[in-house]
Amino acid sequence: MSAESVWSLDPRTGERRGDAPVAVAAGPAAVDAAVRAAHAALPALADRARRSALLRAAAAQLQARSESLIAAADAETGLGTVRLTGELARTVFQLRYFADLVDRAADAGGFLDIRTDTADPGLTPPRPDLYRVQLPLGVVGVFAASNFPFAFSVPGGDTASALAAGCPVVVKAHPDHPETSELVAAALRAAAVGTGLPEGVIGLVHGFAAGPELVRHPLLSGVGFTGSSRGGRALFDLAVTRPRPIPFHGELGSVNPVLVTPAALAESAAAPEQLAAGLVGSFTLGMGQFCTKPGLVLLPAGPAGDACAKAVADATAQVPAGVLLDERMREAFLDGFAARAALSEVQTLAPAGAAGTAEAPLAVRAGVLSVPAEAALHGSHEQLLEECFGPTTVLVRYADAVEAVAVLGRMEGCLTATLHTTADDPDAPAWLGTLAAFAGRVLFGGWPTGVAVADAMQHGGPYPAATSSGTSVGGAAVQRWLRPVAFQSLPAQLHPQA
Amino acid sequence: MSAESVWSLDPRTGERRGDAPVAVAAGPAAVDAAVRAAHAALPALADRARRSALLRAAAAQLQARSESLIAAADAETGLGTVRLTGELARTVFQLRYFADLVDRAADAGGFLDIRTDTADPGLTPPRPDLYRVQLPLGVVGVFAASNFPFAFSVPGGDTASALAAGCPVVVKAHPDHPETSELVAAALRAAAVGTGLPEGVIGLVHGFAAGPELVRHPLLSGVGFTGSSRGGRALFDLAVTRPRPIPFHGELGSVNPVLVTPAALAESAAAPEQLAAGLVGSFTLGMGQFCTKPGLVLLPAGPAGDACAKAVADATAQVPAGVLLDERMREAFLDGFAARAALSEVQTLAPAGAAGTAEAPLAVRAGVLSVPAEAALHGSHEQLLEECFGPTTVLVRYADAVEAVAVLGRMEGCLTATLHTTADDPDAPAWLGTLAAFAGRVLFGGWPTGVAVADAMQHGGPYPAATSSGTSVGGAAVQRWLRPVAFQSLPAQLHPQA
Repeated sequence: MSAESVWSLDPRTGERRGDAPVAVAAGPAAVDAAVRAAHAALPALADRARRSALLRAAAAQLQARSESLIAAADAETGLGTVRLTGELARTVFQLRYFADLVDRAADAGGFLDIRTDTADPGLTPPRPDLYRVQLPLGVVGVFAASNFPFAFSVPGGDTASALAAGCPVVVKAHPDHPETSELVAAALRAAAVGTGLPEGVIGLVHGFAAGPELVRHPLLSGVGFTGSSRGGRALFDLAVTRPRPIPFHGELGSVNPVLVTPAALAESAAAPEQLAAGLVGSFTLGMGQFCTKPGLVLLPAGPAGDACAKAVADATAQVPAGVLLDERMREAFLDGFAARAALSEVQTLAPAGAAGTAEAPLAVRAGVLSVPAEAALHGSHEQLLEECFGPTTVLVRYADAVEAVAVLGRMEGCLTATLHTTADDPDAPAWLGTLAAFAGRVLFGGWPTGVAVADAMQHGGPYPAATSSGTSVGGAAVQRWLRPVAFQSLPAQLHPQA
Repeated sequence: MSAESVWSLDPRTGERRGDAPVAVAAGPAAVDAAVRAAHAALPALADRARRSALLRAAAAQLQARSESLIAAADAETGLGTVRLTGELARTVFQLRYFADLVDRAADAGGFLDIRTDTADPGLTPPRPDLYRVQLPLGVVGVFAASNFPFAFSVPGGDTASALAAGCPVVVKAHPDHPETSELVAAALRAAAVGTGLPEGVIGLVHGFAAGPELVRHPLLSGVGFTGSSRGGRALFDLAVTRPRPIPFHGELGSVNPVLVTPAALAESAAAPEQLAAGLVGSFTLGMGQFCTKPGLVLLPAGPAGDACAKAVADATAQVPAGVLLDERMREAFLDGFAARAALSEVQTLAPAGAAGTAEAPLAVRAGVLSVPAEAALHGSHEQLLEECFGPTTVLVRYADAVEAVAVLGRMEGCLTATLHTTADDPDAPAWLGTLAAFAGRVLFGGWPTGVAVADAMQHGGPYPAATSSGTSVGGAAVQRWLRPVAFQSLPAQLHPQA
């Protein structure tokens, strides 16, 4: 059986790009080879100075190759060079951010989380001298996301945080950007070699079957995943049913509700229109292909809410049509919108639909739906409370706080939840608590798209937003790839702090 | 169908104690009621001052009732009043230790792990104001251990750390000490009521079927387990295959190898005998029913090792016979020892066996086996590298470092690994690295039984020693029951630090 070819596709047309495949799908032997090479690189990554140098060299390599990387990514994803330029800059920043964390790993608050105890035989139970530190977990498998060819893919947060922890990585490329994946992997390998590390610290495999093969590999010790609920759960199931289960840090998508209070709409005469403009900008950003897209907006019934809804409809109609990442997503988006629009009492404020042009026959238009809260709570309308990936959102018009609470109480775990109200709203603390009960990041004002790379970031949330309490963005992301070991009664000359 | 009765048994005779059952097995309705009562208590536990008061009141209640608690535990477990007095003192200390952690939760290094970022719109990506904090996970299910009726049971580390985190607890009692469990639960409930908290913060259920029922309950958010590999894995499988998977922090047992180098034996003329005395004390402590029992000792071949082995045999023969926790464990111990003793090239240095008396017909005697490392490495001898619960250990006689490394390379994940060598041994750092690769706690000298309640403790290890990277003893145990939430762009007056 010859290896299956992997082609790069043009999302604007669905056609193959170029005359030759860009890679071959990895069979079991190729996955095994990548994992073994990564495992062999584990001792080399124990040196923190070298790890930090690797991350900085990777950032420099991506910057040096930015033109060709952005061109390939745009050709494969249709996300546009402006957005991709920003995404690559973010990715470069992120690599350097994690390098800084490695440099500070042993400091107070650093990710080695060093804890010490001195012996005290008088306690019950007696206490010996203890030194607790975090060690790398082992080889990490990373599943690249469709929607961020840089920031959540080969050189993204999972890879950067795993390398920072001292864990070699094998990335499963996403089929929506195989050429970009190859180019980035080559850049990272060049960085490894330039830092005196084996190329095996970064492996890359393509093809659907390579995913399960990777998760099942006996030498794999953890998985980072960004993608769909269905795919993520299937791989999670494999990870936890192995003879030796391994942690699976999956980010599976989210509805990201937004609660707009009457007070927010009343804050100024322009408030309804300003909210509408912000919302439309957020839910259509990157053609709505953000895991943090606001997919459900609780908007008060009544004239101010009506004005806001009308402004949302008008602004949505002005959004240029665009392409989605691939044909499967396009179908799912169009079908998902149509199914929701067909539910009773659902009103189409702006119709999503095919909007092909000669250059981009697969382009689609953004759409917005509206529904009374009472109807949204029907068992038959559950789909409205679930994510529809792509440029669409649902306005849920609520009559009073009881209805809003009822809808929020039906939310499954989310990455984000956003509150729009006034700073002096006496109910604000209670609303924040309600939102924090099911979300990993709670915003006061603003919009959830855009996730800062920061010490205090949390990108993750209760299941199904994520399969663990970890974060895939920000400083705490490193903790996912570490395990603690306590050393007891080490003599002074063997003490790591000696 | 009437509820199944739960009797307290005398481990010395296997007979029922008293004329009446001490509890009834919980059916689905009783489990549901306990979990719902716990869930209803979640908001009340949000107040950290009250949580801390609860833990201190619980400690005081246990101290006030210590006489009856120790009497019941000894009658049910046969562990003896000396050991149980120490265990209860440890448990009381542990409750107060976690109360102290609650009081310091918001400080630097405290378990709320507060991280803040100030807004910086100039970064790529721009950074908003962020405040990241840990929230309680929800209701925690705790599976009590057979071998520690206090310290790893109803009032033990899992319960104390979950309450410290703000999570109400439902404990599944262990069938080896149902009466103790009831008495302790009553003490904890009295502490709750005395602190103005609902009794539901601590639930207790009995019976085999209550375990799976608890793990599957939709309102359960996490599990702490201490017990056997088989039982733990079965419950882990339930936890991760739920529609909403939940974290399962299981501690499933461990071999806890000890490496004795030739240098350690040569340190003094008395060294072989001193090592033997320490080893026998450790592997027979509590009749060998410690999860940290040293179950395999790598001992050099040659005269000094022979002298040590002989001293181990002699000291073991002097250990008084005693009872195990229940008849199932007794059978497993006797069968496990006999099966290992029957393997080729295995020498019985001290025979384990039945040693009943009139008062304790079920008593057994400790035993020791010895085997050349080469034979221990045979595929047919794998059982020698697996845990045999009870008072026995295996001396593996190795010819050189290559053989010792080969045996250690066959170890599955362990809670502990111990190195006996001299402080100036140039190979000590390499040995420590070898042991840390598969263990959660690495000891330089000493013996692994006895786990200090301390900030820097790690009680857990790679699978199958544990099913997560958490620890069930020490300060970091609280982290298992928390999840992070980031609040973004909170106005000053709503900021938690305001």
